[in-house]
Amino acid sequence: MSLENIRSVCEEVLSRVIPEREETEKALRIFREVSSYLEPVLNELKYPYKITLEGSVSRDTHLRDDTDLDVFILIRYEGMRREWLEGLINKIAVVLDRFKPKKLYASHPYLRFKVEGIEVDVVPAFMALNVSEVRTAVDRTVFHTNFVKSRLSKDQVNEVRLLKRFFKGIEVYGAEIRTEGFSGYLTELLIIYYGDFINTIKGLSTWTPPQVVDFLKLYEDLKDYVRLYGRKPLILPDPVDSRRNVAAALSMKSFSTAVLAAKMFLEKPSLKFFYPQVDVSELSWDNIVSYISSRKTSIVGYLIHYLEGTSPDIIWGELKKCLRRGINVLKSYDFEVLDTSIWCDEVNTAVLLYEVPQEELTPYVLHKGPKVFRDVEVRRFLDKYLKSSDVVGPWISDYGELIILKPRKYKTSLEVLLNESKVILHAKHIVNYKVVKLGDLANLYLGNDNFKIWLYKFTHKKPLWL
Amino acid sequence: MSLENIRSVCEEVLSRVIPEREETEKALRIFREVSSYLEPVLNELKYPYKITLEGSVSRDTHLRDDTDLDVFILIRYEGMRREWLEGLINKIAVVLDRFKPKKLYASHPYLRFKVEGIEVDVVPAFMALNVSEVRTAVDRTVFHTNFVKSRLSKDQVNEVRLLKRFFKGIEVYGAEIRTEGFSGYLTELLIIYYGDFINTIKGLSTWTPPQVVDFLKLYEDLKDYVRLYGRKPLILPDPVDSRRNVAAALSMKSFSTAVLAAKMFLEKPSLKFFYPQVDVSELSWDNIVSYISSRKTSIVGYLIHYLEGTSPDIIWGELKKCLRRGINVLKSYDFEVLDTSIWCDEVNTAVLLYEVPQEELTPYVLHKGPKVFRDVEVRRFLDKYLKSSDVVGPWISDYGELIILKPRKYKTSLEVLLNESKVILHAKHIVNYKVVKLGDLANLYLGNDNFKIWLYKFTHKKPLWL
Repeated sequence: MSLENIRSVCEEVLSRVIPEREETEKALRIFREVSSYLEPVLNELKYPYKITLEGSVSRDTHLRDDTDLDVFILIRYEGMRREWLEGLINKIAVVLDRFKPKKLYASHPYLRFKVEGIEVDVVPAFMALNVSEVRTAVDRTVFHTNFVKSRLSKDQVNEVRLLKRFFKGIEVYGAEIRTEGFSGYLTELLIIYYGDFINTIKGLSTWTPPQVVDFLKLYEDLKDYVRLYGRKPLILPDPVDSRRNVAAALSMKSFSTAVLAAKMFLEKPSLKFFYPQVDVSELSWDNIVSYISSRKTSIVGYLIHYLEGTSPDIIWGELKKCLRRGINVLKSYDFEVLDTSIWCDEVNTAVLLYEVPQEELTPYVLHKGPKVFRDVEVRRFLDKYLKSSDVVGPWISDYGELIILKPRKYKTSLEVLLNESKVILHAKHIVNYKVVKLGDLANLYLGNDNFKIWLYKFTHKKPLWL
Repeated sequence: MSLENIRSVCEEVLSRVIPEREETEKALRIFREVSSYLEPVLNELKYPYKITLEGSVSRDTHLRDDTDLDVFILIRYEGMRREWLEGLINKIAVVLDRFKPKKLYASHPYLRFKVEGIEVDVVPAFMALNVSEVRTAVDRTVFHTNFVKSRLSKDQVNEVRLLKRFFKGIEVYGAEIRTEGFSGYLTELLIIYYGDFINTIKGLSTWTPPQVVDFLKLYEDLKDYVRLYGRKPLILPDPVDSRRNVAAALSMKSFSTAVLAAKMFLEKPSLKFFYPQVDVSELSWDNIVSYISSRKTSIVGYLIHYLEGTSPDIIWGELKKCLRRGINVLKSYDFEVLDTSIWCDEVNTAVLLYEVPQEELTPYVLHKGPKVFRDVEVRRFLDKYLKSSDVVGPWISDYGELIILKPRKYKTSLEVLLNESKVILHAKHIVNYKVVKLGDLANLYLGNDNFKIWLYKFTHKKPLWL
């Protein structure tokens, strides 16, 4: 590890991630403009309210060319249920009509639209006076912003930017179901805790799960944390609400990726951790096909169309469940699964892929029956198989079991995916699907750069920073 | 179950197995003749001796056309060591010179020769006055003969013949390593214990391992038997020497085969249990090849030549160890083994066969490395594989392990057998070997009826009586 090398890499990254002053000023101007449209509507309410800017711009931790605005409307009204919120949102939508706002739902309804290229979310929330009054995740955001603003120094905001870019580079940034990685708030807390980017990386490189990072020093014993928060890879009790693990959404895969990347970065600091580059010369379709054919594995899966407008977290949740069921079903029919991945355009199209050692299995499979001493089972087994012309045997094993060779139900993984699709793809928002093998993806590959990079990574497998 | 059917089958079997009076008389005449040659040599010794007839002829339990003589020389001489026995055997061999006796070794040296088509063993043993004086298995034989003669009625000898023929038919007769089945003595004891053939079969059909059959009623609790004799499928304490389990050599496979055959026989009595018939029309080489190719498995193995004159128990012991090592080695290289078998001509040739689902495996195999948190192992793993051009990856699994696809060491089972033969065929008496697949066995198949039947059974798998 050379500290000098690390510093020079960080300098280069900073020169790319610190936003231009104009960008931030524009964002703040848009915030004021949106607020001015909101105020008349809110003044009609007979409840106290406040319009605040939350998110990374408010904390000055946003990255260049990656500015979006979280405009929160905090209202102190005890009866603020979902139906009431819907009514409010509809009224707000009218006054923001010029921006063509879309109504979206997380746990909560909110509005999203673009102004001069900047994405704006307008999120109504309950104005909690303290954390114990918090009802939903959005109500808690204000407390997070306050905590970060009060604890993060002017120098540290750029350290957050470095760490965000690092997490983005190694693809573990974002707590949504798609990534199951590090949220913006978690990233900020790590910088506050460790002091700066390089110390955070050093800390990360030594993490082993379950890892505790605790501002509050709640317990002495690891067991107490695990008892309270579950066996999560990272346990970081929220300093504003200790009942909650800020890293609850972080998967073992994202955790491990961050740890290994930290180790590797310290060993050999490089820009590629922040800005991984796919070698364009390797991106031809022929290259992808020859990757796979040279290792003689087989790639099969589903091309899926889902209901347009389904929120990313919902569809990613469904796709992940489908993927997992597919693995289990394939395994139950003796297909080993080497690797899997999900692509989703977050509009209406998704691809689930499975890499299996070979497309076709041997036609017969060894089937162990009961031991010969078990009268009832033996009778049932013999009645089923003794006269069956398509089985070999039965014979008696060295351990006294009846053994047969019998034809497999499915000889190819494509047959499994096709015939078991009802089970595997059981999900609310999937509209239709097609079983595909690698060759069927050529058009999508050639027509969609995002899919291209994803398929390249799935076939290449080694992280670009490794 | 129809008792009438069973009886009529048994009648038919008896009509085939009870020896003609002439056959027995001839055997007894040969016994007297051999004795007369032995007496002068033995009279030179200054120790008490006795020449006795042991084995099935002495107990009148031998089968027709299957008579051999066990001539025992019992000598009461405390200093009767192996060297002394060798000297005696050599002197005896001289007076039996006209029969061209061969010197053989079990635990003990003895002579074997043929007289008028009848095989004769001349076995010197220590004359024990009671069982506690017994030194080797052969010394104990006399007590077995006495026990059987004193307990087996005139009617029961034919019941023994039925049971012997049944065990021969289902291929579990004989305690030698080749079969690991029921010895003649064990067969006789079962008839004494259960009374007759049909009751023995009824008993057998209900056996579950560990099964205790105890004349002596030594214990109440199964656990005590297992503690004393080990977890053997069948525990039958020798009524003349309770320290010993008469069924110690019985394998789980032979035990299970007998149990299932007994159940099946009671359900549907048939001559095929006693005289299983291979359908000659199915014995063509083409038929064997098409059996295998229709189920698309692959048969591979070794054609072995071993030192001529090696005793069957020795070579069978070695071959079984080799077979087992072959299974383990194949499995360790990811080759599933569906079935195996050994053929041995008991002269100088043997064949070990393995049936595997397919001759060739996929070229790449998934290899799980350490979790990313284990610094030393991760370093070693990355040094080994990161720059290796013939591996895919590494990547990080959902569980935080480093994963690669790497080329297999052996892609075919033939490669395994060829390259690991030093390990697999490590045995004292194997002289040379050749790795073979099914096609290489055509000549042996066409030239050797015994091998033909064996290979038919190995490919057909279902016992002929099932």
